[in-house]
Amino acid sequence: MTTYRIAVMGGTGPQGKGLGYRFARHGHDVVIGSRAAEKAAVTAEEIRARLEGVDGAGEVTGAANAEACADADVVLLAVPWDGHDELVATLPLAGRTVVSCVNPLAFDKRGAHGLVIDGGEGSAAERAQALAPDATVVGAFHNVSAVGLWGEEDYLDEDVLCVGDSDDGKAVAMELARAVTGREGISAGKLRLARQLEPLTAVLISINRKYKVHSGIRITGLEHAPHAG
Amino acid sequence: MTTYRIAVMGGTGPQGKGLGYRFARHGHDVVIGSRAAEKAAVTAEEIRARLEGVDGAGEVTGAANAEACADADVVLLAVPWDGHDELVATLPLAGRTVVSCVNPLAFDKRGAHGLVIDGGEGSAAERAQALAPDATVVGAFHNVSAVGLWGEEDYLDEDVLCVGDSDDGKAVAMELARAVTGREGISAGKLRLARQLEPLTAVLISINRKYKVHSGIRITGLEHAPHAG
Repeated sequence: MTTYRIAVMGGTGPQGKGLGYRFARHGHDVVIGSRAAEKAAVTAEEIRARLEGVDGAGEVTGAANAEACADADVVLLAVPWDGHDELVATLPLAGRTVVSCVNPLAFDKRGAHGLVIDGGEGSAAERAQALAPDATVVGAFHNVSAVGLWGEEDYLDEDVLCVGDSDDGKAVAMELARAVTGREGISAGKLRLARQLEPLTAVLISINRKYKVHSGIRITGLEHAPHAG
Repeated sequence: MTTYRIAVMGGTGPQGKGLGYRFARHGHDVVIGSRAAEKAAVTAEEIRARLEGVDGAGEVTGAANAEACADADVVLLAVPWDGHDELVATLPLAGRTVVSCVNPLAFDKRGAHGLVIDGGEGSAAERAQALAPDATVVGAFHNVSAVGLWGEEDYLDEDVLCVGDSDDGKAVAMELARAVTGREGISAGKLRLARQLEPLTAVLISINRKYKVHSGIRITGLEHAPHAG
């Protein structure tokens, strides 16, 4: 198994904290990033407490966002859309694999819906790529419920869809997915398809509200793939 | 079981033909619609041939699109996006439940992707509702593979996501989903979320190309719903 050193931007939020926990539980080293290093340290401590007694867990530490990136192999963007661009522009992302799980959503009385990014021709992941042209940006983990990530199940019963223009970058996210679902993530197309994966979360939120569940996405049919196994 | 009389606009195309077959196999009466009544009659005959010996199958006939709608309870829009508005504007849809499975997609050397409708603030389903304000438009069956529909499996291993602003309209689509998946469709939010379901098909097409499968979507977590049955 390849283990990575992963910096989680927005690591004190529910999605970042949950993914950081799952990655460390699976043996990756995780640096929780936050605007304030002290806040990051608190979340790192909370995750370490949950990992006590877990064999083979990775190290979990906290740092201010940009410092957290410093010697990371992978940077996970798990920040709110509000302020995304300003933060991403300040991060040292060149040469790194950057995984964006950012969901630009809005809520009104009719429920959750996707925000229109760049007139419908963009996404948070593409925006990150534009802001950090020397990074390899991948979109993944958009649709994974924070509650499930922080929950008690060994693995979540869903699939992680990974999109990107670099096969190598996508392979990193697909490997990281094992920490969450127990199996490789799914290669789901080019980076621009993040336009579909990000607001799909609004559909899952609608289902959650209607049925009072934490829903996820699974892709069927893959068991028939010529090289499945 | 409620049985409906369903007119399938674009019923000679693969998605329309496949859904028409599944609906009739489940006991609904189906009128295949096409621009030319003779083409519709050929497809209707093809479906009837497949239904020979199926107990309880509904009637399948063919007609020109507008005539097919005339005494239908439900009109399924399974037409290409190209020419969609012009066709929908000519159909007698007032007072009917209209189910749109139209996917506005484009293809280039980077694969399939969603077309931007109304600056990102629209979808084929919403366009149909705007053109037929006295119809009840629902979005459903976008992500169901035509190959699977026309295939040999009794039911497809996937979920039908149904979006709409009318609960009654959505309930019709959710009931019709039983013909395809063997279980009720999933209530997945308001009609505007068709903006997410329509181009999600581009993600499935990308997965299909990569893994050489016919993929589908399943929603996980619903077995924990308070009223799951």
